[in-house]
Amino acid sequence: MTAVLPAHIKGADDPLIPVLAVVGVGLIGGSFAAALRRTNQVRRVLGVERNARSLAQALGLIDASVSLKEAAQQADLILIATPVGGLETVLSQMRPYLRDATVLTDVGSTKAEVVQTARRVLGKQSAQFVPGHPIAGAERSGPEAAIATLFKHRDVVLTPLAENPPQAIALVRSAWQACGARVLDMTASAHDQVLASISHVPHFLSSVYMAQVAQAADATTRLALAGSGFRDFTRIAAGSAKMWRDIFLSNREAVQTELTAIRKVLMQAEAALQAQDGFSLQALLEQAAQARRNWPKE
Amino acid sequence: MTAVLPAHIKGADDPLIPVLAVVGVGLIGGSFAAALRRTNQVRRVLGVERNARSLAQALGLIDASVSLKEAAQQADLILIATPVGGLETVLSQMRPYLRDATVLTDVGSTKAEVVQTARRVLGKQSAQFVPGHPIAGAERSGPEAAIATLFKHRDVVLTPLAENPPQAIALVRSAWQACGARVLDMTASAHDQVLASISHVPHFLSSVYMAQVAQAADATTRLALAGSGFRDFTRIAAGSAKMWRDIFLSNREAVQTELTAIRKVLMQAEAALQAQDGFSLQALLEQAAQARRNWPKE
Repeated sequence: MTAVLPAHIKGADDPLIPVLAVVGVGLIGGSFAAALRRTNQVRRVLGVERNARSLAQALGLIDASVSLKEAAQQADLILIATPVGGLETVLSQMRPYLRDATVLTDVGSTKAEVVQTARRVLGKQSAQFVPGHPIAGAERSGPEAAIATLFKHRDVVLTPLAENPPQAIALVRSAWQACGARVLDMTASAHDQVLASISHVPHFLSSVYMAQVAQAADATTRLALAGSGFRDFTRIAAGSAKMWRDIFLSNREAVQTELTAIRKVLMQAEAALQAQDGFSLQALLEQAAQARRNWPKE
Repeated sequence: MTAVLPAHIKGADDPLIPVLAVVGVGLIGGSFAAALRRTNQVRRVLGVERNARSLAQALGLIDASVSLKEAAQQADLILIATPVGGLETVLSQMRPYLRDATVLTDVGSTKAEVVQTARRVLGKQSAQFVPGHPIAGAERSGPEAAIATLFKHRDVVLTPLAENPPQAIALVRSAWQACGARVLDMTASAHDQVLASISHVPHFLSSVYMAQVAQAADATTRLALAGSGFRDFTRIAAGSAKMWRDIFLSNREAVQTELTAIRKVLMQAEAALQAQDGFSLQALLEQAAQARRNWPKE
């Protein structure tokens, strides 16, 4: 008996993506390549890497290490998995060599700025660029951390452009689905607002809090007595300062909007505390506790 | 060969605490009793409980369920492990029956208010009351969650009163040390400021943030896309609204002082973001990341 595969899942002889290029073969790029390889959705994987000595190739994540020019000339799908700040350079160097049939996508954690950059650099060829964001963080990084199952049951948000042809969007969607991900479409601005709320602002607040503790005259005593609540609340503050600086700057307006909304709730809570208004204080704490307990992912 | 025990650790025949009374035999009170029993530091354990049907006794945590009056009359050491709000009633009902030699201690997570209450209710007998706070949270609660090892390697802060005789302080210290805890002395106000910083404020901020997300028009989308950073940052917001309301009210001034300090750092960070001042933003994030990575308890 032969398993009947959905139309978009093709076999090894007729893969979804004959040639895949991954620009930046780290945790995300490497895992994307590994997942598509494992499901036979790709025939050949090219990698564009900063370092000449290819760790990704040694690990079997890619078949060959190539230049941006070669990737642009040869690939059917190009995944750009560099930090958001590197997108402009990558697109500029590939643009003159891009074939019309090539589809590009990215993994940046903010999208409005990415769309702006893509349109500015690519001009009419922005139709070939389908912006994406796999929401799959991990403690580790680098190609050695890449695993084929990283995106299994994870969400990937696409923010398609009005000028994207349906088949370009479909290709990117199918590729992520083949990695085991759930794919959602959103506008770039809706994506950025939601991510500001559930990812960027927690990091911002956790870092601000952690900095304030570190600045206290009795910081040593505080840190010595801090326990498990502190541990959870500040875990994200240990992340890369440079990476998060770029995310905050890239998503500045949405982050500011959320912080303004939070400051309003904070001031209400502080006013209730100052007035010793236990009723209002408990109502707010109850709303938070209920929402957290009902969070379907816990 | 006989092990030589430190002077304050006595054997089963001559226990540190002939009769221990625990008021409120939940996670904390029950674990204290269990730890002292296991190390033979106690001969008889009395429990004062809200419910007549004693789960604590069935579990072997206490030998007998008694009234506050009986506890006051019979015990050598009384541990009050009720919520902070219940202290006044407990002390009032025990005061007329307290023997001069009896030592009392508590486990409240704020201390200035506890000291005030103890002095008001006990009058000159406040010399018998040594305030304490074991810093050992746990996800679970109730006598069925009690374990003899709960306080092992955990911190217990004592905030002795000027009127406490040295031997009363020594008894409470020895009891906690017998439970495996590290015992520190602090003033009540230093304790409250530190706890506001490393326990109460994280809960306050996490709850405010969680309430703001829950209040958003697109809360469902936000919560659906929230990931592991959100999970950690909001875990504490799921705690008991009533218990945390009481902690915030009880430690109002110290919490307000910390929130004011945090709001100052928050506004600096927001100003850097608004001005697209990547240098200042990264410096703040770096300070936070370094402090978190260097936290000795992780």
